[in-house]
Amino acid sequence: MARIVMKFGGTSMAGIERIRNVANRVKHEVELGNEVAVVVSAMSGETDRLVNFCREASPLYDPREYDVVVASGEQVTSGLLAIVLQSLGVKARSWLGWQLPIRTSDAHASARIETINSEAIGKAMAAGEVAVIPGFQGMTGDDRVTTLGRGGSDTSAVAVAAAMKADRCDIYTDVDGVYTTDPRIVPKARKLAKVTYEEMLELASVGAKVLQTRSVGLAMKEKVRLQVLSSFDQPTDNPTPGTMIVGEEEIEGTTMERQLITGIAYDKNETKVTLTAVPDRPGAVASIFAPLADANINVDMIVQNVAHDTGSTDVTFTVPTAELARSLDVLERERGTIGYEKLIHDTNVAKISVVGVGMRSHAGVASKMFDALAARGINVLAITTSEIKVSVLINEDYTELAVRVLHTAYGLDAEDAA
Amino acid sequence: MARIVMKFGGTSMAGIERIRNVANRVKHEVELGNEVAVVVSAMSGETDRLVNFCREASPLYDPREYDVVVASGEQVTSGLLAIVLQSLGVKARSWLGWQLPIRTSDAHASARIETINSEAIGKAMAAGEVAVIPGFQGMTGDDRVTTLGRGGSDTSAVAVAAAMKADRCDIYTDVDGVYTTDPRIVPKARKLAKVTYEEMLELASVGAKVLQTRSVGLAMKEKVRLQVLSSFDQPTDNPTPGTMIVGEEEIEGTTMERQLITGIAYDKNETKVTLTAVPDRPGAVASIFAPLADANINVDMIVQNVAHDTGSTDVTFTVPTAELARSLDVLERERGTIGYEKLIHDTNVAKISVVGVGMRSHAGVASKMFDALAARGINVLAITTSEIKVSVLINEDYTELAVRVLHTAYGLDAEDAA
Repeated sequence: MARIVMKFGGTSMAGIERIRNVANRVKHEVELGNEVAVVVSAMSGETDRLVNFCREASPLYDPREYDVVVASGEQVTSGLLAIVLQSLGVKARSWLGWQLPIRTSDAHASARIETINSEAIGKAMAAGEVAVIPGFQGMTGDDRVTTLGRGGSDTSAVAVAAAMKADRCDIYTDVDGVYTTDPRIVPKARKLAKVTYEEMLELASVGAKVLQTRSVGLAMKEKVRLQVLSSFDQPTDNPTPGTMIVGEEEIEGTTMERQLITGIAYDKNETKVTLTAVPDRPGAVASIFAPLADANINVDMIVQNVAHDTGSTDVTFTVPTAELARSLDVLERERGTIGYEKLIHDTNVAKISVVGVGMRSHAGVASKMFDALAARGINVLAITTSEIKVSVLINEDYTELAVRVLHTAYGLDAEDAA
Repeated sequence: MARIVMKFGGTSMAGIERIRNVANRVKHEVELGNEVAVVVSAMSGETDRLVNFCREASPLYDPREYDVVVASGEQVTSGLLAIVLQSLGVKARSWLGWQLPIRTSDAHASARIETINSEAIGKAMAAGEVAVIPGFQGMTGDDRVTTLGRGGSDTSAVAVAAAMKADRCDIYTDVDGVYTTDPRIVPKARKLAKVTYEEMLELASVGAKVLQTRSVGLAMKEKVRLQVLSSFDQPTDNPTPGTMIVGEEEIEGTTMERQLITGIAYDKNETKVTLTAVPDRPGAVASIFAPLADANINVDMIVQNVAHDTGSTDVTFTVPTAELARSLDVLERERGTIGYEKLIHDTNVAKISVVGVGMRSHAGVASKMFDALAARGINVLAITTSEIKVSVLINEDYTELAVRVLHTAYGLDAEDAA
C-alpha cells in the first residue's frame, strides 16, 4: 500500500467524459490498495473565461475579488470528480481550499502555500475515501480566497503530497514524460525514465514546459517524488510509466549507465540588449543592472566585451522579450548615469542549453558544445554556465539545427541509445 | 440614512454590461447615504449549466457535491460585482456563504437558513463598504457547502435583511412589480403599490410568480419590508417604485381607499382526480389522503359529493400535475384498502382565486364570484376558501375569460380605478 497524490490538468478535466476517464484511473489506484488524494485543475478554457470576466469588469481589478472569481473553476471540477467517483463505487469527497484549509500568503493571484492542514483528509483517506482537492486555490490568514497563479495546480499537488508525506505525486498531463529534447525538433528524442529535480528545473526554465517550475522547486525542497505521465491514450489499469523526477541520490546507483548529458533545451523568448561605449570605470556595470533589478527585470546572460584601450567597453546581456519594452525604458531613463553611447537590441536570438548532473564529474562538456556548433558554422554570441548546465546564445535562425547537432553530439539520439 | 438590502436576479447579472448597470444602481443608493448589502444570483443560464454537469456526472449525484458545484455560479457574480463597484469608486467586497458564515440545515440542495453572522458585514457596511453576498448558498454546521434550492437567492436576501435589521429589502427582477392579475391576460391590470405578506403568499402560490414563496413567508415572519421592482429600463438615479410587500398594519391606515380584493390569480398546473363509489363509511376519506400525505403529495381542493343513498360517495380533489403520476401510483396501490370503483383524472382544469385582506370584513365576496362566473356560463367544479382568498376550480378553457370577468367584477380594471 502506498499513499499517492494524483494531479490532473485542464485538458484531462474538460467535460464529463474525460472526468470519467480520470475517475477510472483513480479507481484503479484505489483498487491496488493505495490511499489516494486527487488534485484537479479547472476545465480547460474555464480559467481563461473567468479571467476575461474580471478584465472586462475592470482592467484594474482587485486581485482579492479576482481570486474569488477564478477559484470557482477548480471548485466545479472537484465536485464533479467526487460525483463521478461515487458513481463508480469509489468513496470520495471534495475538500475546498478553505475547508482543509490550505493557508497561503496574501499575495492574491500569485499566493504561496504556507501550510496545509492534512489531518481531516488523512483520516478520510485512511478510511478508504478519496480526497478530491481543487488545485490552484487557498485561503489567507484572514480567510480570504487566494489563487496561486497560472499553473498553480501542479504546486498544489506537490504541496499536498508533502503535507501527506505521500510516496509519490503523479502529474497527469498531455505529454507522456520529459524528453531529451523537444520531439518536434528532434524525432529521435528519447523519453527519460528519471531526471533529477535540478535537471528538471533547468530543462523547464529553458523551454521544456512540462511542469510549472515552482512545483519542481517545491518538490525538491520537500523531497516529493514526482512522476509526469500522460492522461490520454492510456489503458486505465496499466498506464505507461512516465518520467520520474527525483533526488540525485535515487539516481546515483545507476550513474554508470547514465548519459553525461540528460537533455538539450532551447528558449526563443530572450532578447539580446547591447550598450555600446560604456565608460570603463568602477561602478559602471552596477549602474546598468541595479535599476533593472529594481524594476524586477530578470537579466540572464551577461557579456562584457574586452575594452579596446579606449576607456570604454560594450556590455551585452539578455532579458525576457516580454520585458523588453520596460527594460529599454529603464535604460533610456538611466542613460545619463550609465553614460553609454548606443542602446541596441536584437530579438532574433535563442538560448540553447545542455543540461545534466553527469557533467559535474566530466570535463570537456562545454568544449564539445562549441566544437559541435562551430563545425556547422553557428556563431556563439554569449555563454553562461552552471554546475549542471552550459547555455549559449545564438542566432535564432539556427535553433533547430543547433538542438539536433547537440542531441547527436552528446549521444542522446534514440538509435544511438539502443 | 437607511440600511438596505438589494437583490439582483440572474437576468440582471447576465454579463459584465448588465452587472455594470446593477453597480450603478447600487452606487446611487450609496450616494444617498445608505448602508447597502447586495445579494446576487448566478448569471442566467449558469446554474442550469452546472446542474446539467452534475446530472451528466451521475443521475444519482451526491447532493453535497452538487452543492459544491452549483454554489460556484453565485461566487463568480459576487466577485465580479465587487470588482465593478470598485471601478466606479464604490468601496465593496464579496462575502461568501462560508465567510460570513450563513449557517443552514444539512438538507443539501434545499437547505434552510438557520443563522447569519452579520457582525463582520455590519462593521464593513457601517464603514461605508458595500457587502456583496452570493445568494442561494450557505454552509452546514460541519462546514460543508449548501444551496437553498432553486430561487433561493430571494430567501438569502430576506434572511440577510432580517439579520441586518435592514429598513428595506429591494428585490430587482424582470417585472416591475406585483399586478392585480397577469397583464398578459388583462391589459387593464394595475400595478399594486402595496400588498400584504399574506396576499403576496396567496398570489404567488396560485400563479403570480414574482417572488419565491419561501422568501415571502420568511419576510412575514421576520417583518422584513420587501419591495419588488424592475432592474431594466430604469433610470439609475431615480427608479420607478415597484410594489411594497409589508405587514397589514402598514396598510391599515389606508384601508378606506383599498379595494376589497387585491388581485386575481390563476393556476393551470393542478389536475382533478376523482374516485367513484367510495364506500360511505368512517375512515374512508382518511384511507385516501393519508397515503398521499405519506408520499409528500400536496392535495389542494377536496370535494366529497353527496351520497346518493347508495352507501357510496364520489371523492374529488386536486394535486399538482407534476405529481399526478405518483398520485395515481399511490391510489392504485391502495385500491384494496380504499375500495373505490373508478379512478378518473382531468388535467384540463384551472384554479382561479380572488385574494384580498379586505374580504375579512366584507361578506358577499364569494357569492359575487359565483354570480359573475355563472353569468358567463362558467361551471364551478370545486371551491376552497381561506380568510383572505376564495378559489374555484373550472374548466381550463375558460381561464382567461374567468380572470377578465372577475377583474372587472371586483372593480380592479385600471380605468375603473382612475
